[in-house]
Amino acid sequence: KKKINPVNFADRGMSLEAEINASNTYYLTTGQAVIHKKPTPIQLVKVDYPKRSAAVVREAYFRRPSTTDYNGVYRGYYIDFDAKETKNVTSFPLKNFHQHQIDHLAACLKQGGICFAFIKFTKLNEYYLLPASFLIQTWQIQASGGRHSIPLTTIKKWGIPVQNGLNPRLQYLPAVDQLIAQQKGVTNE
Amino acid sequence: KKKINPVNFADRGMSLEAEINASNTYYLTTGQAVIHKKPTPIQLVKVDYPKRSAAVVREAYFRRPSTTDYNGVYRGYYIDFDAKETKNVTSFPLKNFHQHQIDHLAACLKQGGICFAFIKFTKLNEYYLLPASFLIQTWQIQASGGRHSIPLTTIKKWGIPVQNGLNPRLQYLPAVDQLIAQQKGVTNE
Ligand SMILES: [Mg+2]
Ligand SMILES: [Mg+2]
Repeated sequence: KKKINPVNFADRGMSLEAEINASNTYYLTTGQAVIHKKPTPIQLVKVDYPKRSAAVVREAYFRRPSTTDYNGVYRGYYIDFDAKETKNVTSFPLKNFHQHQIDHLAACLKQGGICFAFIKFTKLNEYYLLPASFLIQTWQIQASGGRHSIPLTTIKKWGIPVQNGLNPRLQYLPAVDQLIAQQKGVTNE
Repeated sequence: KKKINPVNFADRGMSLEAEINASNTYYLTTGQAVIHKKPTPIQLVKVDYPKRSAAVVREAYFRRPSTTDYNGVYRGYYIDFDAKETKNVTSFPLKNFHQHQIDHLAACLKQGGICFAFIKFTKLNEYYLLPASFLIQTWQIQASGGRHSIPLTTIKKWGIPVQNGLNPRLQYLPAVDQLIAQQKGVTNE
């Protein structure tokens, strides 16, 4: 008889985005949250419209997005985040982030959104939500000569761990609940 | 001397989406709201990666979006809407909407989002925000044999008019404020 090993998605190399997308589908289907990945923006140059069949893009280029990857609504709150993974095991490199993402998170935060980075340490199989307020501060410190990565110990202190399982793949709404409680506690809203 | 006529964007045929995008840029720049149009989802089939230059999409197809066109955050609220225009002058045809848009608006509404259709009567140069709750109800009545369009008189009654000007092109946040007051008043949140 064939031996069936327990499923280990991390070993199979399922990307963080694929895991988040699967979780979002689960949350949508069960009516718990409406969170979607934004499509990659494309600059169309040439499109053919053949008779009796679908339009075909024949020349197009990828454009730099002006926002983060994910947004949506949960319990009346606007949710906004970017997904980032690293093979590092002791720290998270800030070069994974781009200025436009930091600016977008800051703008959404100012409007009262719940904003964070969804971080995965692929080799450790560990996941964290890192509040945007902390990320923005760290980014600014880096710009004025600070270190180029965030130590895992710091992420453990300021981030909220996310449990992984089967359905949903990443049970991240309880971590979002904690983030909401923190953020709304601080701003007294 | 050449006579310069007053600018009339409606006559020049600026699309509703272009007008909304310009307004969103204004609101973003002035720190009033963060609302973006989602890119059209594309199914990539063939992408070339030439040396020393940008990747080129050589074959791709348009996919049906699973959401509406616009979303974002304003005053702590999740905002979600679709832009629709008609050349009709007495009613708005429901065929402009698709089931997946109605489903998405209903799901976002259930999560406490501020959801609506941003409607333009191009020949009248009139703009309205139509609350999603009203739209969904009308859609369901249509499905069970009701009429296939919404009379302008009904839109005037249930919708909130949007003023147009120069900067922002469409001053729609005051209409959103009214929608928030209505919706939060009704649900007692
Ligand atoms: Mg990402
Ligand atoms: Mg539209």
